[in-house]
Amino acid sequence: MALADTRFENRRRKLSTMLAERRIDDMLVTHLTHVRYLSGFSGSNGAMLVSKDRTAAIATDGRYTTQIAEEVPDIKAVIERNVGVAMLSKAADGHRVGFEADYVSVAQLDKLREACPDGVTLVPVSGVLEDIRLVKDEVELTRLREAAKLTVQALDELLSAEELRAGRTEREVAADLEYRMRVLGAERVSFDTIVASGPNSAKPHHGAGDRTIAEGDLVTIDFGMHRLGFNSDMTRTFAIGEIGALEREIYEVVLAAQLAGVKAAVPGAELAHVDKACRDVIAEADYGEYFVHSTGHGVGLDVHEAPSAARTGTGVLAEGMTLTIEPGIYIPGKAGVRIEDTLIITAAAPEVITEYPKDLTVL
Amino acid sequence: MALADTRFENRRRKLSTMLAERRIDDMLVTHLTHVRYLSGFSGSNGAMLVSKDRTAAIATDGRYTTQIAEEVPDIKAVIERNVGVAMLSKAADGHRVGFEADYVSVAQLDKLREACPDGVTLVPVSGVLEDIRLVKDEVELTRLREAAKLTVQALDELLSAEELRAGRTEREVAADLEYRMRVLGAERVSFDTIVASGPNSAKPHHGAGDRTIAEGDLVTIDFGMHRLGFNSDMTRTFAIGEIGALEREIYEVVLAAQLAGVKAAVPGAELAHVDKACRDVIAEADYGEYFVHSTGHGVGLDVHEAPSAARTGTGVLAEGMTLTIEPGIYIPGKAGVRIEDTLIITAAAPEVITEYPKDLTVL
Repeated sequence: MALADTRFENRRRKLSTMLAERRIDDMLVTHLTHVRYLSGFSGSNGAMLVSKDRTAAIATDGRYTTQIAEEVPDIKAVIERNVGVAMLSKAADGHRVGFEADYVSVAQLDKLREACPDGVTLVPVSGVLEDIRLVKDEVELTRLREAAKLTVQALDELLSAEELRAGRTEREVAADLEYRMRVLGAERVSFDTIVASGPNSAKPHHGAGDRTIAEGDLVTIDFGMHRLGFNSDMTRTFAIGEIGALEREIYEVVLAAQLAGVKAAVPGAELAHVDKACRDVIAEADYGEYFVHSTGHGVGLDVHEAPSAARTGTGVLAEGMTLTIEPGIYIPGKAGVRIEDTLIITAAAPEVITEYPKDLTVL
Repeated sequence: MALADTRFENRRRKLSTMLAERRIDDMLVTHLTHVRYLSGFSGSNGAMLVSKDRTAAIATDGRYTTQIAEEVPDIKAVIERNVGVAMLSKAADGHRVGFEADYVSVAQLDKLREACPDGVTLVPVSGVLEDIRLVKDEVELTRLREAAKLTVQALDELLSAEELRAGRTEREVAADLEYRMRVLGAERVSFDTIVASGPNSAKPHHGAGDRTIAEGDLVTIDFGMHRLGFNSDMTRTFAIGEIGALEREIYEVVLAAQLAGVKAAVPGAELAHVDKACRDVIAEADYGEYFVHSTGHGVGLDVHEAPSAARTGTGVLAEGMTLTIEPGIYIPGKAGVRIEDTLIITAAAPEVITEYPKDLTVL
């Protein structure tokens, strides 16, 4: 537990520093993902008050008395049903208390205001915890590597068992893949699994439906697992038997774009530049209009989180960030290809944690 | 499609009536569940402006141009990335526009305020759509019955295949059950499946872990599926081989409580009374302190929604509402039992849509 305590304390220390810089005395943390990030508590009701002087308080309700004592041995929990109000009441007279403006609803803020002690001022705060989460610590990186590895293993098992083949429905393949992830340790999927076959592969947001996979199809599989608080995200596109020339061409273009994106993802690179590195390859092959989304996003406690590698992306990559590189080409009514890896940005070449063959695989 | 159109129009008409009663000219609907409820649109970005004069507008982004035209043939969509702002800009000068205070974050409201046309006033609104959703229409009831039936079928298949037995882990059983639901048509699970065995059955919020199920265990399985926008929710507790006297006794008490709760769930019944009907049976058997949660909740677009059958529940049941009845007894460190059905409230006895044997099943 000593190791774990240090990790959470380190994260809270970063928050305390940022609060001091912004002249905020305490941060009321109510977004559960952030409560877990700062304390290790994984229950479904919790809040914290983290102060610029590096002290921290935590609250949950009676269902979690035992669990919070085990998961957060370094802070004595307040047991109360309305955890936000309980934490706010701990703020000292004259304090400016930040609240999470991106997650607190207008109705919730009204309730906090009603319960706010005299002399305490509530201040909206955005993006502070997201900024701290941008660079992952070693424990986070380990969890992300584990989730990615198990995700790759599930795909590998699916293909070894020949569960992806003509004659099966998209839904059946998705069910098999999810089952394998679950057995390997996933608590749930990170998002609805995509199995998009034939013309459906041209829809970037297709789910997994009743279409039966046929010879000559491209099949795009985009999937991930949630395990121990962290997510994974990867995509591969496969050929079912003999595919057409168009399908083969767009596959090769997307693959080249994906490799260019991975190569560009180094510390100091501007996010808009990483997007451009992918996009240029596709545009040069005259498919620019068919790459209808951005290049990638961070993966961590949320499956989609900062940074964002988009045309309009701002900021630069740094060591310890994660980023997906997932270019695609989608020809409406015909076929589509997407290839996606999750990377950890390192001083050298990025670490591809969803390591799995990317050359066209014909099944 | 004509039938579908009428359904969404009916729901919007109810909203228009409630807006007029509250002196609100237009409602800005940004909660995606509500956008789907009022229009049929199932994409991941959308907003509506529904007016007291019974007109409605809808917006989504370019990814969904085709889909929204198919799903919402009766309203021409505005295609714009920032859908909330796009809808707000349609409000006429002098109008009072309601926004969903329970779902709009403080940061989102700031953006809406910035974009708000001169002469338009934003007004926080809570609970109006939840009130409309309380009583389900025929299409909703059909979807709920279908989801519940498939959920029961998945459990039946699990038991027929003898996948719930000593020697298997909770996680394996959960994976099997989820797989069966997925193949039967679930788009996803409604919530993390609970398979709580032996001493874990005494934790109402246990998930499904690595414990191996053993002879003499009680195993509580609480699960549900999300399909076509609607959810299911049911729980059964099974005996693995010969169980002890305590286990047998609490099973019989919970079953009697559950039957009493179902019996009490009739139109006009106060929600607190339905809770009491369950709770009294357990209290009379001297297990009152071990029933640590409330009796039930509505099931619909959300797996937990109004009404709430709790000690502090307010309001009365009406025909067409849904309600779970799920009493439990949890003896810490020893064993627990929960039995849950989802009901549709009818003029006669409630319709139990998760029909499945409740007498103690020894596997």
